Amino acid sequence: MYRTNSCGELRLAHLNQEVTLAGWVQKTRKFGGMIFVDLRDRYGITQIVFNQEINTQLCDQAIKLGREWVVQVKGKVTERSNKNPNLPTGDIEIIAAELIVLNPSDTPPFTIEEDTDGGDDLRMKYRYLDLRRTAVRSNLELRHQMAFAARSYLNERKFMEVETPVLVGSTPEGARDFIVPSRMNPGQFYALPQSPQLFKQLLMVSGFDRYFQIVKCYRDEDLRADRQPEFTQIDCEMSFVEQEDILNLFEGLTKYLFKTVKGIDIPDFPRLSYADAMKRYGSDKPDTRFGMPFVEIKDLTTGKGFGVFDSAEYAGAICAAGCASYTRKQLDELTDFVKRPQIGAKGLIYVRYDADGSLKSSVDKFYSADDLQKWTDRAKAKPGDLLLVLCGETEKTQKQLSELRLEMGARLGLRNKDQFNCLWITDFPLLEYDDELKRYFAKHHPFTSPKPEDISLLETSPERVRANAYDMVINGVEIGGGSIRIHNSELQKKMFSVLGFSDEQAQAQFGFLMNAFKYGAPPHGGIAFGLDRFVSVFAGLDSIRDCIAFPKNNSGRDVMFDAPSAVSQEQLDELHLKIVRS
Amino acid sequence: MYRTNSCGELRLAHLNQEVTLAGWVQKTRKFGGMIFVDLRDRYGITQIVFNQEINTQLCDQAIKLGREWVVQVKGKVTERSNKNPNLPTGDIEIIAAELIVLNPSDTPPFTIEEDTDGGDDLRMKYRYLDLRRTAVRSNLELRHQMAFAARSYLNERKFMEVETPVLVGSTPEGARDFIVPSRMNPGQFYALPQSPQLFKQLLMVSGFDRYFQIVKCYRDEDLRADRQPEFTQIDCEMSFVEQEDILNLFEGLTKYLFKTVKGIDIPDFPRLSYADAMKRYGSDKPDTRFGMPFVEIKDLTTGKGFGVFDSAEYAGAICAAGCASYTRKQLDELTDFVKRPQIGAKGLIYVRYDADGSLKSSVDKFYSADDLQKWTDRAKAKPGDLLLVLCGETEKTQKQLSELRLEMGARLGLRNKDQFNCLWITDFPLLEYDDELKRYFAKHHPFTSPKPEDISLLETSPERVRANAYDMVINGVEIGGGSIRIHNSELQKKMFSVLGFSDEQAQAQFGFLMNAFKYGAPPHGGIAFGLDRFVSVFAGLDSIRDCIAFPKNNSGRDVMFDAPSAVSQEQLDELHLKIVRS
Repeated sequence: MYRTNSCGELRLAHLNQEVTLAGWVQKTRKFGGMIFVDLRDRYGITQIVFNQEINTQLCDQAIKLGREWVVQVKGKVTERSNKNPNLPTGDIEIIAAELIVLNPSDTPPFTIEEDTDGGDDLRMKYRYLDLRRTAVRSNLELRHQMAFAARSYLNERKFMEVETPVLVGSTPEGARDFIVPSRMNPGQFYALPQSPQLFKQLLMVSGFDRYFQIVKCYRDEDLRADRQPEFTQIDCEMSFVEQEDILNLFEGLTKYLFKTVKGIDIPDFPRLSYADAMKRYGSDKPDTRFGMPFVEIKDLTTGKGFGVFDSAEYAGAICAAGCASYTRKQLDELTDFVKRPQIGAKGLIYVRYDADGSLKSSVDKFYSADDLQKWTDRAKAKPGDLLLVLCGETEKTQKQLSELRLEMGARLGLRNKDQFNCLWITDFPLLEYDDELKRYFAKHHPFTSPKPEDISLLETSPERVRANAYDMVINGVEIGGGSIRIHNSELQKKMFSVLGFSDEQAQAQFGFLMNAFKYGAPPHGGIAFGLDRFVSVFAGLDSIRDCIAFPKNNSGRDVMFDAPSAVSQEQLDELHLKIVRS
Repeated sequence: MYRTNSCGELRLAHLNQEVTLAGWVQKTRKFGGMIFVDLRDRYGITQIVFNQEINTQLCDQAIKLGREWVVQVKGKVTERSNKNPNLPTGDIEIIAAELIVLNPSDTPPFTIEEDTDGGDDLRMKYRYLDLRRTAVRSNLELRHQMAFAARSYLNERKFMEVETPVLVGSTPEGARDFIVPSRMNPGQFYALPQSPQLFKQLLMVSGFDRYFQIVKCYRDEDLRADRQPEFTQIDCEMSFVEQEDILNLFEGLTKYLFKTVKGIDIPDFPRLSYADAMKRYGSDKPDTRFGMPFVEIKDLTTGKGFGVFDSAEYAGAICAAGCASYTRKQLDELTDFVKRPQIGAKGLIYVRYDADGSLKSSVDKFYSADDLQKWTDRAKAKPGDLLLVLCGETEKTQKQLSELRLEMGARLGLRNKDQFNCLWITDFPLLEYDDELKRYFAKHHPFTSPKPEDISLLETSPERVRANAYDMVINGVEIGGGSIRIHNSELQKKMFSVLGFSDEQAQAQFGFLMNAFKYGAPPHGGIAFGLDRFVSVFAGLDSIRDCIAFPKNNSGRDVMFDAPSAVSQEQLDELHLKIVRS
């Protein structure tokens, strides 16, 4: 037995017990005739004391200990004279009687501390050392807790976790698949699943009634901070349900996670239609930790001789409370912000509602104080506030204004990571028109059910058809999304025809599921949560990488493992493959 | 809301309640003026009654219902006059007031019954219908329960579930990897992991202390009944532990699973060394539901003029109780069995210990009754028993005798699927000598630690070194295996040199982990269970396929999904790959 207790466990209640601890040397300090060693493991830090007067030989050993050496210490639990209130074990220390070095350590390439001196690249290369840092490990503890709590909640509600295959067939109509050459079937490939969508719908056809799976999914896309080639979903599907049943059950799951993992009570989730979300926030995943809704002022801006507004399809404002005092420099910064190519606005118009009630604007030339007053009135601005206005083509401008709103929220400290605002976005459009390809695409996927009252619009104005589809949004992050599926083959056929598929094409690409639907498919629907994002939001992280044990970098590389890498010619030959150098 | 209750839920306690059920039509029977419909869902079957006298129109609807149609029924819970004691809901029936067809069904290609008329191929093609059968679905329910219970047990003991990557680097020294071409890194490939071995050891270096993961692993091997290209492990690793700690904790897990999932108390597991297991059962995964141990009789058979025995390295017998009455035909069957090419014995010798105490043997010519009596005495045979004897090269003969023992166990009904005998096999040899490649290979993997008392043998007689490695065996199936790992770099270097690696080769192939071990690796060890096999044993299944929702066939194909399949030229071009037709 290597230890009797962990390094986070001992308290005054254990006084005078003879214990054995094992762990890593965090720090060694010499003070008078004493050597103090902070011994660390996953559970905490305990102070070990070596006393020159009591045992010189042991002290000679202890002084040689380096950072991150692995040691075993036997000794007695003693009350500290100099207690450390910041440490759960801070009331006691261990008077060492025996010391065994289990493994020495080279000096690590960066310090294993809360605030490390290691840069990103170095820490990724030595990820196994970075993971020793409490800050990093606790994200993974949180991830474990959330996954475990989600499973408990779903298990109690009769959901069955079913593992669906990872070596599957390639699916059309999605992102790019990773493919896996089959040795036993030369020239043929498996694909790694982008989601278990087809399988979970089949399980509903099988009468599994309630399915879930916490499952890795794969997408060969260009990467950015919140995308990884492999990511994890909490994937769920239910039979004999309507949208309301799903929203309630999974709002319950989210509340349960907040309660059990973070001890936070979350009130009932507001619901916002997609149309309203776009109108109010210019986004289908609005950050509702703060207000600052859009105010449409197109009607108030037109006909005053200012061509920019006159020719714009849309003009919208947000009211930044207390920002009338912004300096020219600050306003220029905001203008630069909206003009960045990623955002793409042509310019930014402001109206200062000064504390004395006077109005100053970058478009004073065209608009009188009375005109401007109408804008601020509509925005319910108060003296001291700042109105920020963008105009142009509706959708584009809403998106730009959305970015500006988020930026202002951040500048004003309104995006507190310890505050959580959850909501449902509902009534998504069923279809999106692709101007380039000149056809409709399913916004969610082709099995998403239209709202019954909108089915008649499928033939006349498909773009107006709303879907039984929903997203869960927390703090401006899309945490999950799903839909009620089509279970009726006639409706499914109509859907494919709207999407421009011939019967043959539909059969070739989706025949598999359509055939299954002939044998008694129940009404069903589901939802999938992005676990990586869910954990990131819980932990207040900026990147999902920080809650993944061994993430890939932006080129899809694991720099620690040095993967991907070349394989042997022999292996390629077995797979009947040849690399084509371009 | 589609239903108020499930089809498995209603009892006499619900009498007179108005309920709504939804499910599949299992069966329709007309009887007098009544129509009886068995409505099925995952939770059970409830009888629905339509009464011609009460509602003719509803009866006309009901009579049209076909097998597997999906319907919704509203009605009142009523006591049955003719109760069905075989059905949990058999005391009640629903007098239907309303019937809605949610989805009709084509006639399924086989019957959805306990004993179906569908052949294997048909059922795999329509796996989603096969999964409707209670027998199949209950295997998956069991799988869910076992995985959930394992997680609960481990979570309570502070194990953290950590997801390790699926797109990893290719590892040498194992089975064949599946590889995944990287679009972003042309000419390079990820590999799918055969196990998270390296990652879990790194997590120990990271101080995670207790790790587990229920995780898919991948092996591109030729398949058979108990092999799938993707399979699932309960993968575990612990720090600061010795072999004893691991055996106790995971014996506890297995007992917990038996208790919570099957309600069975399992006694403490016997432990058997690898050497003893081979000597007694000729197998490192003996089926201990029955005895019939090997009896070595080489010394008793030699020097009597029978060349076959004289020249044999080994002669061993098993005693089949009560089989002295076996007919010539039965004995011939057994001879044919051991002579099958998969087993490869040259012949089978028997000694009948007849009820009257007389001994008859196929080698009467060479051995007197007194000689034979010595054999039967050593085998503790009683009148009425049959001795079966094989001889030849030791290891080969032990394996053959092991197969014969299992066959006899099966013939005598000693391999009862409802009885569970668990044990540990310990003290595996560290190394195996490969006669062809003329070098030692690690029997487990190169990071397995030798027993401290055997380390000195590493240089002198490596084949005699025993490892701190162990397997858990239930009913003759290897359910799990693991080892204490080497955490000392010097010992690891010696191990590589015994395996014939130069320092450079060791660095190139395993440098990654060896570098990590420089920074304070704790003593650690672990175990991995094969979940598919674990569930199969619990369910008494012959093939792991029956506890996998969507298994592959022997050619690695998913016949339902028709995967693997060809991919587009465009996709191959993006990956810089070309298929070479041979």
